[in-house]
Formats: sequence, structure tokens, C-alpha cells
Amino acid sequence: MDHDNWIRQEFRGLSKSLGFRYTSIDEIENRLTRIRAGMKKQELEALMVIQKMNFYYLSGTTQDGLLFIPLEGRPLLMIKRELERAKVESPIKEIVPLRSNREIPSLIRSHMGEVQKNVGLELDVLPVRDYFKFQDLFPGTKIMDASSVLRETRKKKSPFEIDLMRAAGEIGRKVYQEAKRILKEGMTEIEFGGLLEAVAKRNGHEGLLRVRALNYEAYTWHVLSGLTGGIVSQSDSPMGGLGLSPAFPVGASFKVMRANEPILVDFGTCYHGYQVDETRMFSIGKMSQKFIDAYKVCKEIHDVVLEETRPGANCEAIFMKTLQLAEKLGYKASYLGPPGLQTRFIAHGIGLELNELPSIAQGKSYPLEKGMTFAMEPKIVFPGEGSVGIENTVAVTETGYEILTPVSQEIFQV
Amino acid sequence: MDHDNWIRQEFRGLSKSLGFRYTSIDEIENRLTRIRAGMKKQELEALMVIQKMNFYYLSGTTQDGLLFIPLEGRPLLMIKRELERAKVESPIKEIVPLRSNREIPSLIRSHMGEVQKNVGLELDVLPVRDYFKFQDLFPGTKIMDASSVLRETRKKKSPFEIDLMRAAGEIGRKVYQEAKRILKEGMTEIEFGGLLEAVAKRNGHEGLLRVRALNYEAYTWHVLSGLTGGIVSQSDSPMGGLGLSPAFPVGASFKVMRANEPILVDFGTCYHGYQVDETRMFSIGKMSQKFIDAYKVCKEIHDVVLEETRPGANCEAIFMKTLQLAEKLGYKASYLGPPGLQTRFIAHGIGLELNELPSIAQGKSYPLEKGMTFAMEPKIVFPGEGSVGIENTVAVTETGYEILTPVSQEIFQV
Repeated sequence: MDHDNWIRQEFRGLSKSLGFRYTSIDEIENRLTRIRAGMKKQELEALMVIQKMNFYYLSGTTQDGLLFIPLEGRPLLMIKRELERAKVESPIKEIVPLRSNREIPSLIRSHMGEVQKNVGLELDVLPVRDYFKFQDLFPGTKIMDASSVLRETRKKKSPFEIDLMRAAGEIGRKVYQEAKRILKEGMTEIEFGGLLEAVAKRNGHEGLLRVRALNYEAYTWHVLSGLTGGIVSQSDSPMGGLGLSPAFPVGASFKVMRANEPILVDFGTCYHGYQVDETRMFSIGKMSQKFIDAYKVCKEIHDVVLEETRPGANCEAIFMKTLQLAEKLGYKASYLGPPGLQTRFIAHGIGLELNELPSIAQGKSYPLEKGMTFAMEPKIVFPGEGSVGIENTVAVTETGYEILTPVSQEIFQV
Repeated sequence: MDHDNWIRQEFRGLSKSLGFRYTSIDEIENRLTRIRAGMKKQELEALMVIQKMNFYYLSGTTQDGLLFIPLEGRPLLMIKRELERAKVESPIKEIVPLRSNREIPSLIRSHMGEVQKNVGLELDVLPVRDYFKFQDLFPGTKIMDASSVLRETRKKKSPFEIDLMRAAGEIGRKVYQEAKRILKEGMTEIEFGGLLEAVAKRNGHEGLLRVRALNYEAYTWHVLSGLTGGIVSQSDSPMGGLGLSPAFPVGASFKVMRANEPILVDFGTCYHGYQVDETRMFSIGKMSQKFIDAYKVCKEIHDVVLEETRPGANCEAIFMKTLQLAEKLGYKASYLGPPGLQTRFIAHGIGLELNELPSIAQGKSYPLEKGMTFAMEPKIVFPGEGSVGIENTVAVTETGYEILTPVSQEIFQV
């Protein structure tokens, strides 16, 4: 059978019957309206969107290509490989094949009549070599950095986006519930982590967590037990763990999990591109009292952040309040990492990527807004011994917050 | 306990007892010698290495930082977060803390006495915004593209590297052996894929597959059954599969696997950063004859490529030979994808990344060399029906080849 015909006839029905949810034209139009408001402020006459998550956010598809958005006029979606599938996945009206990047200027010209003078590109992630190629393709055009327009637009989630994050949270709930049945003394951290991932995948977790940065890699198998919980590594996180090798020096390792140790499971889940992040504590038998006490402190800090969470609350003020509380409770030297290696954030924005806005952190003196979503993670680290923490993903609502990761917040003792 | 002291005293022993293999100083010196030969040809007086896999290749660690390599003189490793762990992981002698990128010029000056005039950066992956920052930091320096020096050096693997790939192949062998026990009629593709990953992780697979490109994502759960094997997607691959959503439109889906369908399992395994890639066919009950016949053709093409594999063999010539053979055997319209969507390579270089040199492909008229490693994957695709294929990762030896993925090449029937 002809592939394109098969896609045209069968693909929508098949994919929907197997759980695909497509982005509606209204959703895309709303996002475009907000993007254009940002473009106008920066005096961008057009935007060329390439990076996969921005591209998905504004087109509804992740087929390989380029999305051209003029400030005025209709967007043009250029697709490199699977045109027919992109036509099913994206509600954008004008979708054309792109055989080579050299065709981009002429495709834009035939769509718009001309090429704009000020065009925005994603200079926070676009490789230099590609930038030079765009300069050659558009000799009369000023290429500007559109990163912040995109980041600012994406920071407030729509009800559709929050609903996808809720679904991710539901997968996470199933993972933690089954985790209690899976965890056994003598199992290695990595075996446990792999089995949790298998549960998550079976329930629709997409496996890849996405981060917007060269060299910053995310992963779901962050299982740290006892002393590996006290190890810092490359990532800007209170504790990195041992990992499996110098090439992957974070997360679960071959360490065997033992009775009474604190076992920290920090698990990210992804559904339709939307992520939630959450952490719970486990123990085999009763966890040592030192860690139970420290966990209670994390929980207290967590609850204080939630109390403060509402539109208008200042991010830096919330962070500083947690610092003061940790100090008052006697955990100044272990809160958010060991001395000299302590991180300076209590929450990171989350959605299609793990490092979105807002950041509830030192130096981030901006307000929370309705529709923002963040993962908030008070953690306490004792080098050579272990660490504890709790993490939930939260949406800012009109008057407060909604927790998108609805697992029990007790220590899971098996 | 103090974290840094704990790392200094305990980390090497702990990590080695849990399977870490460190890169030796001789290995690093050999790589540096080859890199410098390339730098000399391109008239680079120094190199600044940032991207994680280049950084690991030349330093032995993946802690966050920057590696400065002068053409003459000792390399300087600057570490942003976990200095003590980097000192354990890297055999490089001079390792210093880097508190902020603004310190880079002064650290280089105090190491070298001056900053070089022609400095290479990885412009194939470095984001534009970072490039601008480097331009500001080094106003008198000409920044050049060092991507090809690094790519060319990395294309020939040392015995140490090939040994790590053999170990990855051994993990893969265990995965496929257990797969036969795991596969059941009525299971979804994604459940099967998740369980295979769990087996791989338990045996030391690092989970993340790395690719050197914006937007190109790799994943291990490429399980396609029956008609999903006939679906093309974003990736430059004969078939992408359905995937779980428009945000992840490749690989395993919620489709239930049925008797007699061809079930294609393309699984990448990563050990100490080094990857192998392999594909085997499965069926529940006997696979339909059409697919058995097509599989035999893939196997025949696979064997012909192996016969040709030796130092000096021309990559393009090998690829064209497979095209001719596919045509002669009556599979011209289904070899490497459906008409109009056929890929133009039979093998991709593999190692720390999935898209290394060499490419055995149309237009790649260069010779194979001893120490090159590639994943070779003849595949046949029938839209609306399914696909078959075989893939092995191979090292080019002095006189021929070594297969690094030693699983049985029969169809796995359960």
C-alpha cells in the first residue's frame, strides 16, 4: 500500500484509538496571539521556530521542520520528512514540504510576498553553525534573539496543558503505588529504578525528559539509598547520587539497598510532552530516626511554600522564607545540599521542559502568576550518610494552588 | 561529615567496587596527541571543549566544566560544581574550580601566560548565545570551528573504547535473551519495551542514548509490531513507528501485539557512555511468510556488508552494492523505507553518540579504517502491514570486522 495514502486514511483513527490527544486550532490560536504580543514588544516582524518543544507548542506536531510565524498573516509550517503525518497532527492550515533548508527563503517569499527585516530565532539553543547558515540564507535580514518571547509565553499554562500534566501526575501516582510492591531488600538502586520506569511506560510515560540546555540531561531513574544520597554531582541539584559510570555520574547505581536506609525516589513523568516531577521517601523496615526527623522538616518547608503559593507572591521571598525556616529548625548546613555545594532554588518551572519559568530562587524577584507550574523540592543532605526530601508539581490557580502529583506524602515503608 | 573529605577518602573505592571504570592517563594522552595533530592542520592554537561527550572523551569525567587544550602545553580542566569528584574521575593533572564563566580568561592566562589568538570551539553544537558570550570574554581572539577536528579524532576507537562497546553488547545480549521470556500475546508494545529496558538497566545500561544534534532524540524503546512497523516519522530512519503521542511520535505505542505479526525490536544499549545498537525480529507463533522472506533478504544484505567490511573499503560503494542487491531480490520499493521516504544510509557510526562517523551511505565516498565502529541496519518496510530488519554494531579490525552485538541472528519465535 502507498504510505501517504495509508496515513491520510488510517492514521488519525488509529492514533486516537491508541491514546493520542491532538492540540486544537483554538489552543494554537491562543498561543499564537500571546506569542505575537511578545513579538510586537521586541519589534520582531517574524519568528522562525525550530527547537522541538517550541515547535510542538506552536504547531501541535514534532515532525521535523520549521515553523514560520509572521507578526501579521498566517503561519507557515515547513516539513522535512513526514508531511502527511504532520498534516494529521497539526491544525495549522498551511503545511508545505521542505526538501532542503535552501528552500526556506523562497517558501517564505511565496507565502508572504517578501522576507521580513527583523526575524527572531531561538538563539538560546540554536547551534552557531546553523546560525551562520541562516545568515547566508537571509542576507538582508536582521536575526534577533527570540528566546525570551518563547520562554515568557510558555511560562503560563492553559487549562489544556494543565490537564496533560494532571494525566502525567496520574501516571506518577501509579508508579509510586506499585513501587511499594516492587521494592525489596538486596535489590540494587538501578534495578528498582528500571522497574519503576517499566511501570511508568506501561501507563503512558514517554520516557524522555526534556531540558532546554546543552549538556543538561534529565533522567527518571533518580533512586538514591543511604550514602549515595549524600553524593553531589554535575547537576544543579542538592544531591546527584553515584550513577553507573563517569559517563553517567548521577542517579541510580549498582549499590544494594539495605534495611533502615533512607531511599529517595525522584521520578519525572512525561505525558504528551508534559512533565511532572515528584519525590517520595521509601525505607525497608523503619527508616533511621535522624532521617525521619529531617523528612518532617522537608515536609514543613514544603507546606509553607504551598501556603505562600498564589498569584502575586514573590518567588525570591518564598525561597528566603524556606532558608530562614531551615535555619530555625537547625538544618542550615544540610538544607539543599552540603556546605559549599548548596543549591539556591526551592522550585523550578516545569512543563514541556524541566527548566522553565518560574524559578523560586535567590535573585528571582518576580511574582507567581496564575497558570504557572513548578516542581518544588525541599531536600536535606548528610554527606556519607544519605538524604531525604519531598517534591511535588504544583499549578498556580486563581486563589492558590493545585497539586498535580497526588501521591500520599507519607514515607513509604515496606 | 564534610562532603569534600568524604569524596577524597571514600569515592574512588566505592565507585570502583560498584563497577566504575576510569579512563587512564595513557588513554587520555593518546587522544590528546591525535587531537593536537588535527588542531595543527587547522592552525588552532587552543581548543575549548564544552559539549559533554567531547569533554568526557578528552578528560574522563562529565562533571560540569570546560576543558582547555593548548596545542603546546598541558591541558587545564575547569570545574563548575563538583571539583573533588572530577579529581577522582579525570586523570588530567591540572584541575581548578570555575565559579563563573567570567573567570575563564584569567584562569587560562595564569595557566599559559597569555590567551591564544586562534581558539577552536564546538560550533556544531554550541548555542549562539554562548558563542556571543565567548566573543565578549575573548575580544582579541579568533574563534574557529573545531567540530570536525573532534569528530575526526573520535571516529577511530581505541581498544579501551571497543572493550566498553563489547560490554554494552553483552548487556544487549542479555536483553534479547530475556525478551523471549517476557514477550506475551496481548501485551502492548510500550509495556514490552519498558520491561526490556528494565532488564538492560539491571545489567548496567545507562538509559540515555546520546545524539549530537539539536532536535534529534534517541531512545531505546523502539518496538514496532505489525502495522506500526509501516509508519514513517520524524527521524531519518526507514520506519519510526507510532509512538505514544504527537510529542513523542516514534517507537513503541499502546498497540497490542498479536500472533504472527512481525515484531521489530531495535534496542540501543549504553555502557560507560559507549553505545551499541541492534535489531532483532520476534513473533508470537510463526511470523507470516511474507515477512520471513523479507527478513532473509535483510540478512543476506547484512552478510554482504560484513563481507565488504575491512580497512580501505569505500563506504558509498558498500551502500550502492546493497541497493543493487535489494533491487535484484525484488525489494527495491520497500528497502530502507517506503517509496519517497527511503533513507539513504545502511550504517551509522556509533560510540559515545549515535551519529558518529563513518556513514555508509550515498555520497559518502571515503574508506573504512581500522577502529571505526558502526551500526548496520538493512530494513524492509511495507506500509499498512509491517517491517523487518536486522542490525548489528561492528568494529573494523585490521583484516575485517568484529561483531560487538553477539545475539543469535535467528527470528525469536515465542
